[in-house]
Amino acid sequence: MSNSTYAISVPALLRGLSIVSSLIEKAEAFSTEKKISPDVLVNARLAPDMLPFSGQVQRISDTSKAVIGRLTSIEPPKMPDEEKTFAELQERIAKTVDFLKSVDESAFDEASSKEVTLSFGKLKTTLTGDDYITKFVLPNFYFHVTTAQNILRHNGVSVGKLDYIGPLA
Amino acid sequence: MSNSTYAISVPALLRGLSIVSSLIEKAEAFSTEKKISPDVLVNARLAPDMLPFSGQVQRISDTSKAVIGRLTSIEPPKMPDEEKTFAELQERIAKTVDFLKSVDESAFDEASSKEVTLSFGKLKTTLTGDDYITKFVLPNFYFHVTTAQNILRHNGVSVGKLDYIGPLA
Repeated sequence: MSNSTYAISVPALLRGLSIVSSLIEKAEAFSTEKKISPDVLVNARLAPDMLPFSGQVQRISDTSKAVIGRLTSIEPPKMPDEEKTFAELQERIAKTVDFLKSVDESAFDEASSKEVTLSFGKLKTTLTGDDYITKFVLPNFYFHVTTAQNILRHNGVSVGKLDYIGPLA
Repeated sequence: MSNSTYAISVPALLRGLSIVSSLIEKAEAFSTEKKISPDVLVNARLAPDMLPFSGQVQRISDTSKAVIGRLTSIEPPKMPDEEKTFAELQERIAKTVDFLKSVDESAFDEASSKEVTLSFGKLKTTLTGDDYITKFVLPNFYFHVTTAQNILRHNGVSVGKLDYIGPLA
């Protein structure tokens, strides 16, 4: 009947990152099969003012590692947004996974009540660690995973809801 | 440093449902302003085998009320998928919100360890209440909220990330 700040965030992010890796694999397989330049899907977007597939993957990585930076005393590695190929996007996800896995749950001991200040354009607010996870991190993370999948599906890649949900066992 | 099964689910669902209501409002305002039949956006989809906007809203409602049905002894109201207008979609969301608000947190006393069996096509599994929320409900809920927003944005409605995140105060 209780879930630590770590328990409601890091395992879900790791699950999601693994699902994103599978999405990139399917995008690459589709490009190969249809003889389409990988650039097409890497740069595909749903609207002119939305990020392309590569940008969705980069924000998935950032949202994940920022949790560590904001809720523990550990500084996340910088990852400049330079990925242009499926292989580079896979590497970005793998590095993010390695970093998250390197952080011990005990680093989150003070996380639930730690103050987090967010500032994105008009959005400026200070939240507790738990509110930061439930009101910002999880919605934002799943936004980018879903949008990455929607970009692929809109372009004909065969990815369905079960690919997005991933293995549950 | 602890979050009940209720705390990690119902408040997030209520926040999301309120954001979906704002999205429907913006979709309706756009249709009126551009003199487009409301049917166009209500039936818009990102791929031929994905649900249209109306279906995304219906699954948002279902995912929310199923939490009560699966984790408490309270039976959720049946809501047949008959909505065809923005007003009817708003009513569906409002009824879902009213139902969620009618459930006292104490109904979730046994929820964290309650067994939940899921069966969707090839996906058949049994999870604890907490795993059901973190591995299935939240990803699925945000999938449909994001896809509803992506459908609108893909069609030119001016909705951005801050509309999706909603008020954080």
